[in-house]
Amino acid sequence: MRKKSPQRLIAVLVFLVFLTGCKKEQAKEETPTKKAEESALSDPLPSWNDGKTKTAILDYVKDVTNSDSPNFIPVKDRIATFDNDGTLWSEQPFYFQLFFALDQVKAMAPKHPEWKNKQPFKAVLENNMGELMKQGKTGLLQIVAVSHAGMTTDEFESNVSKWINTAQHPTKKKLYKDLIYQPMLELVKYLQDNQFKVFIVSGGGIDFMRAWAEDVYGIPKDQIVGSTLQAKYNYNNGQPTISKLPALDFIDDKEGKPVAIEKYIGKKPVFAAGNSDGDLQMLEWTASNKYKNFELYVHHTDSIREWAYDRKSEIGKLDKGLDEGKAKKWEFADMKTDWKIIFPEN
Amino acid sequence: MRKKSPQRLIAVLVFLVFLTGCKKEQAKEETPTKKAEESALSDPLPSWNDGKTKTAILDYVKDVTNSDSPNFIPVKDRIATFDNDGTLWSEQPFYFQLFFALDQVKAMAPKHPEWKNKQPFKAVLENNMGELMKQGKTGLLQIVAVSHAGMTTDEFESNVSKWINTAQHPTKKKLYKDLIYQPMLELVKYLQDNQFKVFIVSGGGIDFMRAWAEDVYGIPKDQIVGSTLQAKYNYNNGQPTISKLPALDFIDDKEGKPVAIEKYIGKKPVFAAGNSDGDLQMLEWTASNKYKNFELYVHHTDSIREWAYDRKSEIGKLDKGLDEGKAKKWEFADMKTDWKIIFPEN
Repeated sequence: MRKKSPQRLIAVLVFLVFLTGCKKEQAKEETPTKKAEESALSDPLPSWNDGKTKTAILDYVKDVTNSDSPNFIPVKDRIATFDNDGTLWSEQPFYFQLFFALDQVKAMAPKHPEWKNKQPFKAVLENNMGELMKQGKTGLLQIVAVSHAGMTTDEFESNVSKWINTAQHPTKKKLYKDLIYQPMLELVKYLQDNQFKVFIVSGGGIDFMRAWAEDVYGIPKDQIVGSTLQAKYNYNNGQPTISKLPALDFIDDKEGKPVAIEKYIGKKPVFAAGNSDGDLQMLEWTASNKYKNFELYVHHTDSIREWAYDRKSEIGKLDKGLDEGKAKKWEFADMKTDWKIIFPEN
Repeated sequence: MRKKSPQRLIAVLVFLVFLTGCKKEQAKEETPTKKAEESALSDPLPSWNDGKTKTAILDYVKDVTNSDSPNFIPVKDRIATFDNDGTLWSEQPFYFQLFFALDQVKAMAPKHPEWKNKQPFKAVLENNMGELMKQGKTGLLQIVAVSHAGMTTDEFESNVSKWINTAQHPTKKKLYKDLIYQPMLELVKYLQDNQFKVFIVSGGGIDFMRAWAEDVYGIPKDQIVGSTLQAKYNYNNGQPTISKLPALDFIDDKEGKPVAIEKYIGKKPVFAAGNSDGDLQMLEWTASNKYKNFELYVHHTDSIREWAYDRKSEIGKLDKGLDEGKAKKWEFADMKTDWKIIFPEN
């Protein structure tokens, strides 16, 4: 399960071609979060509209946590796995981690005057996405190398923390960390309240997510699984550090997700949520659990409040998963009809 | 941090030379477990003799869990990591996982009549450890390959479960799973009761440990970290499996331990326990925590009730760690004097 080429990140670059065709959106919400919170006392999923999906979730959790039910699941086997990009937060016009990488290059540029005339950095500094595209995989790996490696884990975490607390999405004009899905936050909490152990299993970088997701989602760092770079321990005469190396270790996507689940968790999930074909194997793996299980696809259908995309999107493509999920009667959270609000309102 | 050669397992083979010099031991305990359990109400560590080590543990936990103390540690940062072989259970005359591998070869032999005349299997089937030694690393890898790979994760788990519930230690004449340390079980539980999240971080195989350690130690599977083989997801027309491949992925020993801690846990421990030089880097990493921290070495000093070994042992060698630990005033659990009983009495 070791992929040598960062195909997922390449997909990002491919998508950059389509960036100019990106639609304008309104950040419009129907219901204030405060109101949602007030009704949470009686309804654990107040931001979900009543309907088939919400009912299915509530019925499932009530059933498998009822010790008198034949479908009861012991607490220690209540494992739930959630994809991140497109499932817990937005991922358009491209994965937010790539925005981070580009921003890091810009922030580091003053110390690297030579980048002004050296690709792929020149393209980044000039916001020339067309030129960046031409740099291909080799160029992207150079950007990943300078933004994600060649530093200690502490330094990287500090960089991500600063960025996540200040950087704004180019069109939504909100902090990236505010582009998380309120209905999914409620779902995570509802499962946790019912003694499910909730994990993130994402193609995104493990260290990138851990720098903020524990606080933002309420999911402990050790329950966040993602793609990894290789790393090295250095003792430094009693001041040990771990340095991040510019070499891929594991890509946590597609067939990699069940493998990562086995490696990090060691148990098959009973509940899994994703939004793309990259999550299909995780959902299949979950569907093969001997316990009653639940497979959820978030379907991006709301071009006004978020984005609408599926089969033909370069980012978060949902094509095979749409067919297989429908055929197998997995649940779909239709953003437009199932979610009262999309993002939390602070 | 990717080691291509299984140096740790080679050390096992080297040690086999010394097997014939193995001492005879008595399985003698001073205090019944039941009595220990009764006094646990007032004393969380009833199998520990009063003394410096026990006092240090109790004082540390009381201090860092006291919200009025300057040394208070928030619950989410109470990470404790324990080595397994030699720290939570015995590891002599060699790692129990190697006994498992040899037993598996014997169990599989009827389906492989050719093994009678083919090394290294011939040596295993004839209990000819001298000959097995001569087969070196290549031979050992063949034994690992047939006993740990070429099957699904479910099949492997089933094999380990059967073995752990039936196989007896050659000289102690107890089940291997009963050769766990009662005082360390109490320490794990004491930390858990004080809202520490306890992990195993061991050089042993991650799948091997997870097959039994959750039940035996009360540590969830996803909090068990160890060495890994590569793995592959197979869909099988709707019946997905993950197969274990005969190729090393990661050796979780020495410098690998802090790297694995960062990868699996994402936080520096505040409490770490080990017994060998293979744990030294994990203890150094823990000692660099900004929070008040605790480093514990289990020192095998009891040749009667368990085994006595340190600087010159091929298995569980404690040499550099002994010097560094003493110099840094880390705590040592002296088995002979600190532990009232060693193994649980059922």
